[in-house]
Order: sequence, then structure tokens, then C-alpha cells
Amino acid sequence: MSIITVKNSKTYNVHIETGLFKCCGDLIKKACGGEKILIVSDDNVYPIYGKVLTDILEKAGYKVCSFVIEHGEKSKNITNLAGILSYLAQNEFTRSDCLCTLGGGVVGDLGALAAGMFNRGIKLAAIPTSLLAMVDSSVGGKTAIDLPEGKNLAGMFYQPDIVICDPAMLRTLPYEFMKDGFAEVIKYGVIKSESLFKKLNDVDLKTFADEKEKAEDIISECVAIKRDVVGEDEFDNGLRQILNFGHTIAHCIELLSNYEIPHGTAVSIGMVSITKASAQKDICPESCYADLLKLTEKHGMATLLPFEKSEIFNAALHDKKRKGNSITLVLPLGIGECELRKIPVEEITEYIGE
Amino acid sequence: MSIITVKNSKTYNVHIETGLFKCCGDLIKKACGGEKILIVSDDNVYPIYGKVLTDILEKAGYKVCSFVIEHGEKSKNITNLAGILSYLAQNEFTRSDCLCTLGGGVVGDLGALAAGMFNRGIKLAAIPTSLLAMVDSSVGGKTAIDLPEGKNLAGMFYQPDIVICDPAMLRTLPYEFMKDGFAEVIKYGVIKSESLFKKLNDVDLKTFADEKEKAEDIISECVAIKRDVVGEDEFDNGLRQILNFGHTIAHCIELLSNYEIPHGTAVSIGMVSITKASAQKDICPESCYADLLKLTEKHGMATLLPFEKSEIFNAALHDKKRKGNSITLVLPLGIGECELRKIPVEEITEYIGE
Repeated sequence: MSIITVKNSKTYNVHIETGLFKCCGDLIKKACGGEKILIVSDDNVYPIYGKVLTDILEKAGYKVCSFVIEHGEKSKNITNLAGILSYLAQNEFTRSDCLCTLGGGVVGDLGALAAGMFNRGIKLAAIPTSLLAMVDSSVGGKTAIDLPEGKNLAGMFYQPDIVICDPAMLRTLPYEFMKDGFAEVIKYGVIKSESLFKKLNDVDLKTFADEKEKAEDIISECVAIKRDVVGEDEFDNGLRQILNFGHTIAHCIELLSNYEIPHGTAVSIGMVSITKASAQKDICPESCYADLLKLTEKHGMATLLPFEKSEIFNAALHDKKRKGNSITLVLPLGIGECELRKIPVEEITEYIGE
Repeated sequence: MSIITVKNSKTYNVHIETGLFKCCGDLIKKACGGEKILIVSDDNVYPIYGKVLTDILEKAGYKVCSFVIEHGEKSKNITNLAGILSYLAQNEFTRSDCLCTLGGGVVGDLGALAAGMFNRGIKLAAIPTSLLAMVDSSVGGKTAIDLPEGKNLAGMFYQPDIVICDPAMLRTLPYEFMKDGFAEVIKYGVIKSESLFKKLNDVDLKTFADEKEKAEDIISECVAIKRDVVGEDEFDNGLRQILNFGHTIAHCIELLSNYEIPHGTAVSIGMVSITKASAQKDICPESCYADLLKLTEKHGMATLLPFEKSEIFNAALHDKKRKGNSITLVLPLGIGECELRKIPVEEITEYIGE
């Protein structure tokens, strides 16, 4: 087990421990306080964990209610946001009460935004149930909804009061979603830690949740890397952009596929694509691309661009990271090292390897 | 003229100067930068000032577009929020572009929330055109929309990059709205400055905008008081609540009237009501109530409760400032001095004077 303390505008702990879910009630009550708690979850996760969580939270002294959305990216919209906000109002939640997200990235992003907005901020506990959410959304305070015009176009920075990561919960996560989350794990290796990257060759995604110590170790390392990066740039104005490795292309792929292609799959493709281009431009050694390709293929992850370069380019023009006529790309210099480079939009295609 | 520098999570200037509106383009460009700017305004204000502002901003080098909502509190809803967010996306605004609010509190609260949420925050310039917005919303970073369940129930803290207060713009403000804003001006006197309070006896609201120096002086003093209070409590967790003087009852009156009674009118009534109760309970001298009543009546402001105490009490149970079973009330100790006191909800009626 490990506890990673995040110190941003709010200081809070990320608890990473197999089996922790079943006894997280008192931890949440201690971190958040309040009398009422709203569980925000989706119709995949709530049937598995909702009843247990309700019991745990009631035992900890909360009055518990829940708001269950349809699973999937399409639920991350302003209608569900309005629904949660009104539900909180109807149940007379006050600023000292709490919202608890139970689910993957969609539930986490939407629920945290509702917590941040209701009465301009109520308490927030996060229980990520997917690998992606554990290593990516549990730290950083980015909340969001999608607009009809694109993904994550509206949101705010809002930090949780506690995060509970229980790798045992990954046992119920479908293999495809494990692969998705693993793309972000690989990302941390490429941008910051060669030793983490090497460890990932020894992982079997099908038994990941059963290898207690290995799972806790890998998740903790990812969370710690993200904590360190975010700590230097809470509001995403500079350094934090290295977390965006592979993501500029990934966001285009998601948009072009009308969000049919999941985030992690798109990130896997995006990382491989920009690393291929970087190797071709001598920004990183050829071995960097070869190692990344080998690792992603070993885990059965997608690596090939599903759209034309020209389509990716057009979608990139709408990237919210674009500032005026340039986009900052994250370029790998080698495994464990990367740099930010501001690229004029018209040169973006040179960095899309196919 | 005066420039008041606000130092919160963002540092910015509030410029208070008669005639400044007509030359604010370069000031905004310097403070915000960016290539595009969206003017958010309403159908009362935009016809008067929209064309001039567009010209000024174009001269300063911006590509200008506008989003005009219907005037009135009912527009401060999630539908208009979604509309502005989508409009920004459709016009391909990026994080370095800008939103400029031109209007009163509704436009300011709604527009600033959209600016804070779009791409998790774009640049924001505020041009308050009502007295209420100049002295109240220009400092503090509170943004909001109403929910069907109540006023200001969702929002976030988001600071502007510049605020332009031009008292000359008050010439086009209907007398009723001048009275509304003046309630907040009186509030600053009661909670923090006896000297300001005394000055307010010499004001004629019908010629306020024409008395250049007096208007700049009074607005500046209010902004400075708010700046000092907010500076000690940016996220409204304690001391800042003194700005809420008269507001607990005011919010109930607004809600009960279905927002037909304007904010300032409700604040005037709320201040008089709680001061009357405070005098009866010997919290403040009787003269404090007499002076406040005299000043509000002199300016033709509302002072009588339009609803039963029991109705106000029931509405107060939904106040978003309520924490568990208590509400913190702001009680006057005398003109220029007040204190916060945590009151159990069941005792609230004792503080509603009628």
C-alpha cells in the first residue's frame, strides 16, 4: 500500500491499496466530513459496487444518495451536469456535504465538475474504478464535460479531498479497458521513467489486479509522476503539457471517430505515431520508437493511424491546446525523457508518423 | 480616476474613471492579449454600447464577435451558458483569446462563468454597466448561474484580467437600477466605513453619474473595501461572509418573489430587517437602525418585508451558506462595524425584523 500526498491549492491524499475499497468509509468521512454524500456512478459500475459503497458510507455516518448515468463518453454532457446540480439542490446539499465519484474517467470528470460548481464547490471524494482513471484522472484536478463541438471543451480545475485507488477493483474491468489505461501507464514511462517503462514488459494485463504488489507499485509510480508534474504547474500553463504526450493526435482520433475509439486506444496510437515521426526527424533514437512499438504490440494495443494524416491535421486545428497559430507538442528524446516544442500549425503534419 | 489593484490568485486592475469606456480598447488588449474577443451582453445594454465597444476593440486589433442574451435574471441559466460555450467553440476560441462582459450582474456572472469554464479558462475583461455590478461583481471572482431550484446555486471562482468601471455609463441606467446598486453601496458603509456611510446622505441618485468626482470616489471606496475583504478570503470560507450583510434575507425575498424583486431592492429590505432585529436584541444601538432607515428612505429604497417571517424562514433553509444546521449571519454592531455569528437554523426568525 502507499499514500501519495498531493499539495496543490488543496492538499489531499491518494490512497493506493488492494482491498481498500471495502473499508474506505471512515477515510472518506475523515477527509471530507459533511452529513450527506452523493454517489455519482454509471450503469456499468454502480450495479457492481454501488450497494457495497452505500453500506460503507452509511456505516461511516453519511446519509447516502446516488445519481447513475449511462456509461460512455456521450454521457459527459451539460444535460447530465445540470441533472446532478439540480439533484444536489433538491436534496439540499450544502457546502460542507460531499460528492463521491465511483467509476472511470467519464464519471470522474463529470462528477468532479458538478462538485466544483455546486455552491461554487463542495467536498469531493474520488474512487476511480478503471486503470485509466487511477493513473490519470486521480491527480491533476482537471474536470470536464464535452460540448457538441468537441471533447473536454468546458470544465474547471477542482481538486478532490481524497482519492481511493483499489487495484482489486480492476478485476471487474474488461480487458479492453485495461489496455486503454495501460496506454497512459506507458506514457509515464516514456516521458519520465525508463525504469518504469522497463517494468512494463513484465506485466500481464490479464492478471494485473491479482499481482497485488506489482499493481500497487506501478499505479503508485504513475500517480507520483503525475503529482510531481502537476505540482509545478497546477493550472496547465507550461510544464504540465508533457502529460499530453501522444494526446494531440489522440484527441483528433477520438473526435474523428465520434468518440467510438476510446481514449487509451487513441493515446496508444498517438504515442506510437509521434515517436515514429520523431525518430524519422532524429529527435529521438530509432530504438526509442522500436522499444515503444514492441511494448505496445506485446500488450495487444493499437498502433496504426485509423485516419488520413490530412484528417488528423484538420482536427488538430481545433485542439484546445492551440495558442494562436501554434501548438505545443511533446516530443520524445528517448525513453524516460521528452521535451515541449512549439510548432506552427502548418508544420504539424511532419509530426504525425504513419 | 483611480486604479485599484486586486491581488488574488490572479492580480488585476479595476480602473474607475469617467469617460474611460470610450478608450478602453488598448487597456483590454494590454491586460488580456489574444486575437479574438467575444462580447457577452444583453438586449438592454448591447443596443446602447455594443457598436461603440466593437469599434474600440477592433481598433485595438481584436477580431470581435458578440453573444447577446435577453435581459433579466431568468437568462442566468445553464441553457445560455451552454450557448456561449458552444459559440466560443464554433468560433475556434483558444485559451489565449478573450471574453468581455458588457452589462450588469446577470451578464457579468454568466459571462465570467463561461470564460472560466471554456477550455478551463480563457482571458476575461469585465465592463460593468450598472452601479450594482461596478461595486459588487467587479471584485471577488464569484461567477454563477441560477438553477431551477434557486439563485446562484452553480458557479465557480474565476478572476478577471481587467475591470473597466466608467461612471458615465450610469447615465443610461434607469433610476430603479441606480437604487438597486445603491443598496450595496450602503452595505459597504454599514459593514466597514462610517465615513462612507455619512457621505451617502449627500448623494442625489438622479445626478450621480454627472458628479464625476463624487461618483468615482464612492465607487472606488466600495471596490477598495471589497478588495480588502476578498483578499483575506478569496474562496469565501470565512471573513468574506461579512459582504453578505442583509443578503440571507435578501436571497429569500428574491426566491419567494420568483426573482421579480431585484437583488438590490431585496438587499435594502434585508439590511433594514436584520438591523431592526439587531437593535431590538441590543446587538447594535437603536441609532444604527434609525440612521440606516433614514438613509434608505431618503433615497426612496424599499424597507418593508414583502413576505411573512415564516416564509422567509422556510426559504432560508435552502440558503447555500447554510452549513449543516446553522447559518452564519452578519450582524451590525454599529455603522461601520459588524460581526459574523453562527446561528442555529431554528433561531433564524429572531433575526428577521419586520
